[in-house]
Amino acid sequence: MNKALRRLGVNGLEQLAGEIREFLIKSISDTGGHLASNLGVVELTLALHAVFTTPEDKIVWDVGHQAYVHKILTGRRARFSTLRKMDGLSGFPKPCESEHDAFGTGHSSTAISAALGLALARDFNEEKGKVIAVVGDGSITGGLAYEGLNNAGRANTDLLVVLNDNGMSISKNVGAVARHLNHLRTAPGYLGAKKDVRSTLDKLPVWGERITRGIEATKGLIKYAVLPGVIFEEMGFKYVGPIDGHDIPELILALRRVRRIKGPVLLHVLTTKGKGYNIAEKAPWGYHGVGKFDVETGEPAKSSQAPQGLSYTEIFSKHLCRLAVRDERIVAITAAMPDGTGLYPFKERFPSRFFDVGIAEGHAVTFAAGLAKGGMRPVFAVYSSFLQRAYDQIIHDVAIQGLPVVFAIDHGGAVGGDGETHQGIYDMAFLAHIPGMIILAPSSGAELKKMLEFALSHNGPVAIRYPKDFAPEGDPEEISDILSAQTLQNGKKIAIVSVGAMLPIAREVARLLVEVESSRRVSLADSIFSPALFNLRCAKPLDEKLISELAKYEFVFTIEDGVKIGGVGEQICLRLRDEWAAHGNGNRKKAAVPFAFPDAFPETGTRTELFARYNLNAEKIFKKIIEVAGNGQKSGQKTRQKSAKS
Amino acid sequence: MNKALRRLGVNGLEQLAGEIREFLIKSISDTGGHLASNLGVVELTLALHAVFTTPEDKIVWDVGHQAYVHKILTGRRARFSTLRKMDGLSGFPKPCESEHDAFGTGHSSTAISAALGLALARDFNEEKGKVIAVVGDGSITGGLAYEGLNNAGRANTDLLVVLNDNGMSISKNVGAVARHLNHLRTAPGYLGAKKDVRSTLDKLPVWGERITRGIEATKGLIKYAVLPGVIFEEMGFKYVGPIDGHDIPELILALRRVRRIKGPVLLHVLTTKGKGYNIAEKAPWGYHGVGKFDVETGEPAKSSQAPQGLSYTEIFSKHLCRLAVRDERIVAITAAMPDGTGLYPFKERFPSRFFDVGIAEGHAVTFAAGLAKGGMRPVFAVYSSFLQRAYDQIIHDVAIQGLPVVFAIDHGGAVGGDGETHQGIYDMAFLAHIPGMIILAPSSGAELKKMLEFALSHNGPVAIRYPKDFAPEGDPEEISDILSAQTLQNGKKIAIVSVGAMLPIAREVARLLVEVESSRRVSLADSIFSPALFNLRCAKPLDEKLISELAKYEFVFTIEDGVKIGGVGEQICLRLRDEWAAHGNGNRKKAAVPFAFPDAFPETGTRTELFARYNLNAEKIFKKIIEVAGNGQKSGQKTRQKSAKS
Repeated sequence: MNKALRRLGVNGLEQLAGEIREFLIKSISDTGGHLASNLGVVELTLALHAVFTTPEDKIVWDVGHQAYVHKILTGRRARFSTLRKMDGLSGFPKPCESEHDAFGTGHSSTAISAALGLALARDFNEEKGKVIAVVGDGSITGGLAYEGLNNAGRANTDLLVVLNDNGMSISKNVGAVARHLNHLRTAPGYLGAKKDVRSTLDKLPVWGERITRGIEATKGLIKYAVLPGVIFEEMGFKYVGPIDGHDIPELILALRRVRRIKGPVLLHVLTTKGKGYNIAEKAPWGYHGVGKFDVETGEPAKSSQAPQGLSYTEIFSKHLCRLAVRDERIVAITAAMPDGTGLYPFKERFPSRFFDVGIAEGHAVTFAAGLAKGGMRPVFAVYSSFLQRAYDQIIHDVAIQGLPVVFAIDHGGAVGGDGETHQGIYDMAFLAHIPGMIILAPSSGAELKKMLEFALSHNGPVAIRYPKDFAPEGDPEEISDILSAQTLQNGKKIAIVSVGAMLPIAREVARLLVEVESSRRVSLADSIFSPALFNLRCAKPLDEKLISELAKYEFVFTIEDGVKIGGVGEQICLRLRDEWAAHGNGNRKKAAVPFAFPDAFPETGTRTELFARYNLNAEKIFKKIIEVAGNGQKSGQKTRQKSAKS
Repeated sequence: MNKALRRLGVNGLEQLAGEIREFLIKSISDTGGHLASNLGVVELTLALHAVFTTPEDKIVWDVGHQAYVHKILTGRRARFSTLRKMDGLSGFPKPCESEHDAFGTGHSSTAISAALGLALARDFNEEKGKVIAVVGDGSITGGLAYEGLNNAGRANTDLLVVLNDNGMSISKNVGAVARHLNHLRTAPGYLGAKKDVRSTLDKLPVWGERITRGIEATKGLIKYAVLPGVIFEEMGFKYVGPIDGHDIPELILALRRVRRIKGPVLLHVLTTKGKGYNIAEKAPWGYHGVGKFDVETGEPAKSSQAPQGLSYTEIFSKHLCRLAVRDERIVAITAAMPDGTGLYPFKERFPSRFFDVGIAEGHAVTFAAGLAKGGMRPVFAVYSSFLQRAYDQIIHDVAIQGLPVVFAIDHGGAVGGDGETHQGIYDMAFLAHIPGMIILAPSSGAELKKMLEFALSHNGPVAIRYPKDFAPEGDPEEISDILSAQTLQNGKKIAIVSVGAMLPIAREVARLLVEVESSRRVSLADSIFSPALFNLRCAKPLDEKLISELAKYEFVFTIEDGVKIGGVGEQICLRLRDEWAAHGNGNRKKAAVPFAFPDAFPETGTRTELFARYNLNAEKIFKKIIEVAGNGQKSGQKTRQKSAKS
């Protein structure tokens, strides 16, 4: 690729940049996807591919949602109509998709560590090729990136870190290092004038004179004029930049230069998120991850479906603000995602009680523990898959001390579009074995509100997990005790336990079972399939009354939007079998079966598609129940045969 | 306390320092504990308590094993004979032990985040009091500390970070920031001459003249003379230091000064690990965490017990070196614990293939993933409770890409002495639900060796977890397939499945059951209690043949050194019940019971004590088995009554 690109010359490359940009806007307006970040790296990606040759040279894209241009340049343009769709083009780099994707990414701040590993492996194997990590300024706020820099800076290996600095991560980034970058951006004459350390130092006498004028001012001048990128230089990197990330000749010049430098180098590139699409450039946070939209207006495409009400996120967002008015101890924390987690209104309304800690989930949790120890009521709103980053802090800093931290876990369960890296299916399993943790899963907006109220009044850690989905409204009158399961309907032999947002699916399963029943025209007294239906609400601790109640049934099925191994369904099934054994009911045939995600990494797809593929939609669960509960019973077997035919 | 200390004056404090040091050496030589780190902070702790007043002022001790002097000064001296013993004085700060312990610690790098939370809570509550985080230079290599600094540096709150810099973490620390600290330490005239930034800047013309001499030299001079602690200053902290951490008047002066500074301040204090005890000062790594020792010689006290052979750690250590000779792709990674994890011999023998990444477990795993993607065979040797820090990286960077990273998990299961924060009981539960992960648990040295060989030849992630304990030698001839369970003895009704290092306990349970049997003089044909015994070896994936085999028994008991919820015992019991149901054996009374750690945080104690307290020793398991398997059977009931009497 790089030879072809080089042959284009600067004019050709600039023309190509325009074409790619046009393609991106048109294509993403049709499929949805990450727009602003990709528009920002068009020239940078072109320059990288003009100077380096993949797959011999390896580019690791931190986070990875900005790799669309890279995908276009490495033979995947034709597949963009399938972007972020099931079995389509992934929205992230995937080595199994292309040899040009050197390392799979998705979560933030991994690229430097991975690139260091690749670089040292190259040295061990005496191979050629450069390793390049392309890292955003937001990613640098993550401790993992710092650990990577800290180690790469002293490693005796060639490694290029391209710092793609657009002045914001998913939202506006935060923290001291962001300020440092901002200083670098605003230092006098940063573009053009001081191309490298040496030329700057040549001018030093000028600064020397100014030194006596004022101490603080001088300190700043020395730092940013004499020692640009002092943090990175201190960490062992040669620092080059900042350069204009939309100026192709300057990019190519800089990349050629840093390519010759031995050891770890950091090239600081300034880009504009949403570049070239005015609407996105002005409000890039609105065009981070988008659905279909109208190219002319930037407005989201009108959905053909009827409006489905509020999402769990919106309900959380509004209710937290409502509660925060009454209780001044409530503070809210996000790890760089005030919009995604619904905390933006809280931020607007209670700015002094709102903390965006950057992409730093570990810190967010330990910081929350400190706040809780000091008497506050912190709520950490976070996506399920990102909370994985803070597993140790949840145990070590929150749970061991029994501190009242509320984890508002959004994107719990199957997550559409993002694929393997973003599935929120592990949370209940990794939280369940943490002593003292209460795990709640709402099935409606009304429940989510009650759960939030409970969590903020409970003297210990509480996790509330809900999906990226619309929430049924629910009836607050029906909720007396949020820790107890709700009996939605009674049955005779079969009981279904629904966990959280799986309730609509569980209801549909129950409906299908009743339908089979009525088609067989049996009286209710002889009812075999008409099931009892319970809404679990609290995944830990388990509702003891529910277990006793369930023990009366012959067949119990649980339905959850999480991994089976270590999930709540398994816990219920285990308890139930103990219960059956203890009550001497072991002589009757009984079965308890958890429906949950199997031991595999669910790929990209909508929630509906993923449920279908992993046997978690109503139709497949219904068939399996008929198979299990019908087995050995004449009527059941008949029905099974019927359903197998249908 | 602080008034009493101040009244002592400098001479009195210095005398007290000597007395405390003497007490520490004598007391720890008798109980074991963390010696070198505490000897290093005697003066610092005295000065902190002379200037600040706990509990109004809050001191958060990062890691926390250096808080012994603090404990002595806050009324716990008399309890030091119970240090790190069950129900005794904890080796770490614990708020439930004393109101002077502001926040519980144990793992590294949490203090800044927690202190920031405490400081902001204080501000919200309009309370008085300083918040002080005492952080070692090793802890600063952790990403969590960086995330904390990055956030604290921009927070508009009073917070003092005392950087206790002894030039090493548990082992010698590493990385770019360590080098930065080293520069600060070795900068000309660091002690005394330049007490703060201002006085240094006053001298600037001198440096100004030197500037023209040489660019590189000048850069260094500017950085370390003009801008001491430039990284910390850049991160928003006022930097003061470095000062001599064994000079009480200087410490008190500095603490009083920084106490008046508004906003985040970092005081850089230089200390010597092992200070005042020559033997420890010369080899502090040998006196980090010690057992009983002879004060005169520094030699470990001779154990009254017979030598128990090699530990799992030692066997891992030796065998990895052996395998690394044959396979040059093998590289080893530690997160600042080359000694504890047994990697020191590897480091000596293969220095270029050894990587100490600092206290940075997240980076260690992603770095390993990069190495594996590049064709190497990385082995990350790590304590179980510290691997919790890399849970997301194991999923996201290793498992999703199916990369061959070997996790050599030491300190798996119950860990004596360190208490809640260091228990290695979660690993099997948090690894079990990660797709593609193989989890092995050796019961002998021979198995550990075979498992390591398997892991290094398998094309995907493998975890091998073993305890901090001695390893039975084992017989390599008995191991054909490490993924299959081993049948140690056959039985009739009862089967016991032992997981990994619990085998000696499982054997003892089996012996007790046979003993009951023979005391009842029944023939083997009628044997009720004489159990089958299986050695599981592989916790995931489960051995299918074993499950089929176990299904033939009426009562199956699993014994594991980990949490019950989500543990391997539950997985076996679930599978077994499915198996029983599938084969129509549901009409006979059967039971499958997992023995594992209950849903609580096991406190300090020896492994033996913890097994006893949590019903996991042979005697208690035996009794429970008699209770379950004997229930409803005349002979069984008799035996139960008998055993209850005994």
